[in-house]
Amino acid sequence: MTHSFASDNTAPVHPEILAALAAVNEGHSPAYGSDPTTAALAERVAATFERGARTVVVPTGTGANILALNAAAPYGGGVVVADVAHVVADEAGAPARHGLTVLTCPTVDGRLTPDAITRWARDTGNIHHAQPVVVSITQATELGTVYSPDDVARLVESAHAAGMLVHMDGARIANAAVHLGVGLREAVGDVDLLSLGGTKNGGMGAEAVVTFSDDLASAVRHLHKPNLQLASKQRYLSAQLLALLDGDAPLWERCATSANARAAEIAAGLATPETAATGVAVVAPVEANLLFVRMPQAAADRVAREHQAFGTPHDDGTATVRIVCSWDTTPADASALLATIREEG
Amino acid sequence: MTHSFASDNTAPVHPEILAALAAVNEGHSPAYGSDPTTAALAERVAATFERGARTVVVPTGTGANILALNAAAPYGGGVVVADVAHVVADEAGAPARHGLTVLTCPTVDGRLTPDAITRWARDTGNIHHAQPVVVSITQATELGTVYSPDDVARLVESAHAAGMLVHMDGARIANAAVHLGVGLREAVGDVDLLSLGGTKNGGMGAEAVVTFSDDLASAVRHLHKPNLQLASKQRYLSAQLLALLDGDAPLWERCATSANARAAEIAAGLATPETAATGVAVVAPVEANLLFVRMPQAAADRVAREHQAFGTPHDDGTATVRIVCSWDTTPADASALLATIREEG
Amino acid sequence: MTHSFASDNTAPVHPEILAALAAVNEGHSPAYGSDPTTAALAERVAATFERGARTVVVPTGTGANILALNAAAPYGGGVVVADVAHVVADEAGAPARHGLTVLTCPTVDGRLTPDAITRWARDTGNIHHAQPVVVSITQATELGTVYSPDDVARLVESAHAAGMLVHMDGARIANAAVHLGVGLREAVGDVDLLSLGGTKNGGMGAEAVVTFSDDLASAVRHLHKPNLQLASKQRYLSAQLLALLDGDAPLWERCATSANARAAEIAAGLATPETAATGVAVVAPVEANLLFVRMPQAAADRVAREHQAFGTPHDDGTATVRIVCSWDTTPADASALLATIREEG
Amino acid sequence: MTHSFASDNTAPVHPEILAALAAVNEGHSPAYGSDPTTAALAERVAATFERGARTVVVPTGTGANILALNAAAPYGGGVVVADVAHVVADEAGAPARHGLTVLTCPTVDGRLTPDAITRWARDTGNIHHAQPVVVSITQATELGTVYSPDDVARLVESAHAAGMLVHMDGARIANAAVHLGVGLREAVGDVDLLSLGGTKNGGMGAEAVVTFSDDLASAVRHLHKPNLQLASKQRYLSAQLLALLDGDAPLWERCATSANARAAEIAAGLATPETAATGVAVVAPVEANLLFVRMPQAAADRVAREHQAFGTPHDDGTATVRIVCSWDTTPADASALLATIREEG
Repeated sequence: MTHSFASDNTAPVHPEILAALAAVNEGHSPAYGSDPTTAALAERVAATFERGARTVVVPTGTGANILALNAAAPYGGGVVVADVAHVVADEAGAPARHGLTVLTCPTVDGRLTPDAITRWARDTGNIHHAQPVVVSITQATELGTVYSPDDVARLVESAHAAGMLVHMDGARIANAAVHLGVGLREAVGDVDLLSLGGTKNGGMGAEAVVTFSDDLASAVRHLHKPNLQLASKQRYLSAQLLALLDGDAPLWERCATSANARAAEIAAGLATPETAATGVAVVAPVEANLLFVRMPQAAADRVAREHQAFGTPHDDGTATVRIVCSWDTTPADASALLATIREEG
Repeated sequence: MTHSFASDNTAPVHPEILAALAAVNEGHSPAYGSDPTTAALAERVAATFERGARTVVVPTGTGANILALNAAAPYGGGVVVADVAHVVADEAGAPARHGLTVLTCPTVDGRLTPDAITRWARDTGNIHHAQPVVVSITQATELGTVYSPDDVARLVESAHAAGMLVHMDGARIANAAVHLGVGLREAVGDVDLLSLGGTKNGGMGAEAVVTFSDDLASAVRHLHKPNLQLASKQRYLSAQLLALLDGDAPLWERCATSANARAAEIAAGLATPETAATGVAVVAPVEANLLFVRMPQAAADRVAREHQAFGTPHDDGTATVRIVCSWDTTPADASALLATIREEG
Repeated sequence: MTHSFASDNTAPVHPEILAALAAVNEGHSPAYGSDPTTAALAERVAATFERGARTVVVPTGTGANILALNAAAPYGGGVVVADVAHVVADEAGAPARHGLTVLTCPTVDGRLTPDAITRWARDTGNIHHAQPVVVSITQATELGTVYSPDDVARLVESAHAAGMLVHMDGARIANAAVHLGVGLREAVGDVDLLSLGGTKNGGMGAEAVVTFSDDLASAVRHLHKPNLQLASKQRYLSAQLLALLDGDAPLWERCATSANARAAEIAAGLATPETAATGVAVVAPVEANLLFVRMPQAAADRVAREHQAFGTPHDDGTATVRIVCSWDTTPADASALLATIREEG
Repeated sequence: MTHSFASDNTAPVHPEILAALAAVNEGHSPAYGSDPTTAALAERVAATFERGARTVVVPTGTGANILALNAAAPYGGGVVVADVAHVVADEAGAPARHGLTVLTCPTVDGRLTPDAITRWARDTGNIHHAQPVVVSITQATELGTVYSPDDVARLVESAHAAGMLVHMDGARIANAAVHLGVGLREAVGDVDLLSLGGTKNGGMGAEAVVTFSDDLASAVRHLHKPNLQLASKQRYLSAQLLALLDGDAPLWERCATSANARAAEIAAGLATPETAATGVAVVAPVEANLLFVRMPQAAADRVAREHQAFGTPHDDGTATVRIVCSWDTTPADASALLATIREEG
């Protein structure tokens, strides 16, 4: 398969991460997180995110989100999310399987606003409604937009004022930070819980739940194994995340910079008057490594066939195609995709 | 750390498996199980286990067990298990978190017998008791013993006669098959669901749930993501299992043969009259790659310190130490452990 | 408190039901459903609903709905419902607490149509989405409309064709049957599971889950106590339902006829040109015992204060007030309410 | 059916409670607990149990226990209980269905001791074991014994020292208080959560969860409806409990005094040398309204047939029969039972 635009999950593992796995493959090491690699990761995360950050490593992104949300919503209850959030749209009922009611809000561009919190806060204390206890935002969002540090701060303030915690699904936190031109610490802000993504950004399969209080850290630790997220040979998960986070020009930044640049190139290529004239339009601001493009169905069909980016058809003969760039997407891949769209557009 | 006897989870990944991971790290591949490696694994498992075996790949052993048991017990209900079973003793309340009541039976040597099924079957139809719907056996058992094909057949017959399904926790199925001198197919028998282990036997972190009926296959597929077990870059899990299963002298067999041999050497070393005279005794038949040895507390302390094998103290000044051999445990490791025990015994 | 229009749950117990409770209060009787009253109810329900109807008695309506839906959706998964359905709007996250993802559909008048099933059926087999396994309709709906026998038949046909079961929340099934001028059997149609309501229609606190297949009956029986719905002194629940169902001019019919008549009187009173001119409008067809009326906020405030019917404010100075008639609502109550609305309208 | 000794759940409702239900059956009253009867009950419970007691009313005893335990164990985890506790032996897997792992302890006479807490506290912090977070004791126990106020104080002290809360299943708290010769307040002691029983002691079907801290009160309120325990016409539940608790010679005391007296008469009758000589023996101290009696199987059979008290057979030709006295058991009933046992003993 050529480079696919279907998802950053179709990309291979970055060679530096494979090398890191080989490097920790020396001799025996305690299982279940008592190993030195996991300890080093915990230190690295604490230094990166400050505020007493505590870390738990998990194998999947859905696992990270649900573990974090279960810790934040001990009695079940409601999770306020954008209607396009992964947690509501693509996790196969995992929230409900874990007692969580998703309380959705429509959004223009994937970004939740404090209005959503205000709206759902009205249910607090109403015994007939799920109690809204945590807000979950995705950074970057599922539509490829990014919350500014101010956006995050305002949401955190509103949520806390309403008695809710804030969780950030950071499956693409690296792409958000690169867009913002800030470090991970600033891109995350002062949320209460973070799903720290590694897999989509060059990893093999490693995420972390990061918490910023004793209570949440204890809850996550309590739920780690019951929620089926405790890996035995944990050093191999921690090594991936450590390889992404460590160093002066860290891998997370290099991978995300490349992926974002490809998305920007595609967006720029589609913004020309000629292309726009053919009815091709980018749906939301392109700020991270993915974009949604409305195009004629014929173009969408060829893009699916040749570039593995898939769309949702509309009644008017067009389709909205989701295009995701990966750490290894090349400028040539982007150009080829643009050429296909222009030919059929 | 030197070679540890704490667990087969402390061992590194076998080089052939690391090589298999590197080999699949070429270009893009569909995510979430639509990749060719996962397809090849599915074929391999179907050929190995016959009876229409269907496969779902998961990242952790607890995840495999709970996913299988949830499929077998759709309305919750009871899981009949040996009191030493991993699912009751070491899964941190994961069964209850997933609606399952464990119905334990005392055993002499870790092996469940049809009596256990008969005993719990009396609750069938009693609205005040959890309904016993599935029997879960571990092959090899947590005490290092192995069910013979006849044992398994008798349990399956009893369970089915009582209207229960049978699940096998095959975290150490390779060690069982090697002990029995049979293939994996024969070591598994005609159970309804299998947790197929890869991690403990040289893998990095990969297990599978294997089912043998349309209904169970559909249930497992339904629960894969809601139970937080669907990995995105699944080719890296499938590649591990494929590397273990494929070939004429498959890796699973070589790894398990080595680990079992080390356990047998230790057992033989402890069976000498001199050692027995010091109050050192093996608790259960040594058939797989682990053994439980009762020894003076001083010996247990030194074994913990020098060989990372840990024990449970008794009131009489002795302790029972759990010793697990891994695929890379050497004869020298075994000799060193024996020497320590003898010196302090 | 005068007669309230807040809910049919504010009404007292019908004297015939109190008398039935006194009548079964003779001597000892087996607990947990082995009593003769429960047996008589089971026969009565089987005769009323035909198709091999089996009954389980429960204390609350939310309990009945969730017990039925859990039986229909053994692996969790999705419940297709109208967006105004009680199960999504007013059960405080109970579906998610029991593993159920609600899949909502907008409706014009509270009635789900086969389109909703078609829309959600597209998720079947998609491992990233909750699997739609059961459709839940409310008869009469939360907006006071009623499904015709043809409506129900079409929904059942569509659902079954899509591999889904159909559950009916019959909290107000009596009001629906009276409106349709048919028996309970016809008002229910050929759904797979029924929550049979007693409480709102003159009962004290008694509902039943009725199933029409061996598998569903067994599942409900399995879940009765684990779902916290098994009452010990069950004769007192069964006696209420039996008092409603038994006899030639059964109590369910008399109670619902009276409540529906009051709602019709109010609707007729609001339909006069004079009233309509004041901006008062009934939102949906008035077919059962409840109606939603849009009116000036001042009217809504007075209706809340004097008649305990409560509304949702709009931005334009109006509010939509929910008015529910009970078995004991009198023509004088209806007239008084109308007078209040007219004065302020 | 004559007066049965099967259970206090087979008894009818006390006439004073039926009268109380009729008394509140006047006009409309707000639903879901906003009614004046429920408010009066809340005041009554606060006055009775002191320490800021807060009340939530539920329809079943299993519902009360699980609601309380879910509030006490927000992340699931372990409930330390006696092996004979109702919550483990007779709730049909309800704890596991609600995420709770039961951690059992053998007992001599049904009473848990601080040793049990010490034993399970060793699992605290062990990520492979369910975290023990709450101790649940039954007052009076399932074997008919009673914790003294000192017993309860010691358990509470031990549990709190180990970081666990204490829940009391007070399904028979009235019988315990009468045995101790103290009020309900003293029989409950300083536990953190109480299931306050009404049904077994002359009620129709009404229990309450009583909490003694803001956090637990909030958790119980949060879970009331999601756990399917929120009755709509709640005044009819509250009226039952109020009828039991109110007054100078409260009904709870009169009912329990009578039932306890009958059990004592039976125990005394069995303690004669003649009866003892026939191999009939009471198993545990008879302190409340139930007793377990070992007797020849022939006697057990006749007791089952004529007095509806049922037993568990042993291998030696005897059976242990559970005999429960109700508020309406008469001295003649007790004498008749004794006569049967003696004839066959």
